[in-house]
Amino acid sequence: MSSSDLAPWRSPLSRALHRNRAQPFCRFLQLATVRPGGMPANRTVVFRGFRAASNQLMFICDRRSEKLDQIQQNPNAEACWYFTKTREQFRLRGQLTLITADTSATDLVKTRQQLWQKISDNARLQFTWPQPKAARNQDNSAFDAALPDSQTPLDTFCALLLTPEAVDHLSLRGEPQNRIIYHRSQASWTATTVNP
Amino acid sequence: MSSSDLAPWRSPLSRALHRNRAQPFCRFLQLATVRPGGMPANRTVVFRGFRAASNQLMFICDRRSEKLDQIQQNPNAEACWYFTKTREQFRLRGQLTLITADTSATDLVKTRQQLWQKISDNARLQFTWPQPKAARNQDNSAFDAALPDSQTPLDTFCALLLTPEAVDHLSLRGEPQNRIIYHRSQASWTATTVNP
Repeated sequence: MSSSDLAPWRSPLSRALHRNRAQPFCRFLQLATVRPGGMPANRTVVFRGFRAASNQLMFICDRRSEKLDQIQQNPNAEACWYFTKTREQFRLRGQLTLITADTSATDLVKTRQQLWQKISDNARLQFTWPQPKAARNQDNSAFDAALPDSQTPLDTFCALLLTPEAVDHLSLRGEPQNRIIYHRSQASWTATTVNP
Repeated sequence: MSSSDLAPWRSPLSRALHRNRAQPFCRFLQLATVRPGGMPANRTVVFRGFRAASNQLMFICDRRSEKLDQIQQNPNAEACWYFTKTREQFRLRGQLTLITADTSATDLVKTRQQLWQKISDNARLQFTWPQPKAARNQDNSAFDAALPDSQTPLDTFCALLLTPEAVDHLSLRGEPQNRIIYHRSQASWTATTVNP
């Protein structure tokens, strides 16, 4: 992908990230998926940047978390990203790609490795913790594992890519508010200014 | 419902609201639903308080918005509420009840009326705006309607109630993090401390 292939919503999103950068939580967004059975699920995730030469958003997750099952059965997702300082919301709808320790495609393996190497020691430590959402032991010694190697991802570590197909950008500032909807069709994007 | 019937997650949630009150956006949360066809949807909504004598969260929405169709076909929802100052997340899963101008149950009619009366003039004005997400006219005169009556809701105004069945409270502070999951079974709630 050349830089001319950046989707048109990348520029307003970069601007939002820049203008809200004083707030560390500006990289937190909410990712909705559908549970087996048809109930929605929704949780906060941390944006880990765009995958090189793509419009894919990167996240990390634990192989033992419930969202893995959800994603394997239904890869559809909508991320909702609200920027508190500039008062604007991006809704990014698309498909998720999961990268686990079993993934064999070379470029995906590399992305998972790079993400592991990029995160902090504290973030890496969480992948040594006991089974998420299992009943908690009063004794916390299960959380005392040694620091994992910073080069080779643990098996519990997964990467998650969101490939947007539609993006809805709502800006609450303005009289009235402003809303632009972007749609992907094949390799190209259209942008439509709509009522808020 | 007597005050002893407050669900056990109400107290930590009230505390979070109180401790984050300096940030007006502490009342913003993300509500996930499922679109007809099985795709998830996710958007920011404003918490409008608890309905009297209940554990139901109140929101408002426009009758012409896409979420109405979604909710009528599938009332399941999960709200994700992240508090940035205290670094804690509540995930509230349950069913939505929609209250429109056509709703006849007396207690629901009253809730919709009270919400209309409680919101600001600016919030009420939005319900006079032209069709949400329709192509926008360059001329903004369609947004210049007169202020609606503050007592009687416009037909476009709806109230939305979320009745939680499960609540997942994750606190990122603490070494390690703390997580409690609440489940409703009939009229009573159980609380389980689990691994983060």
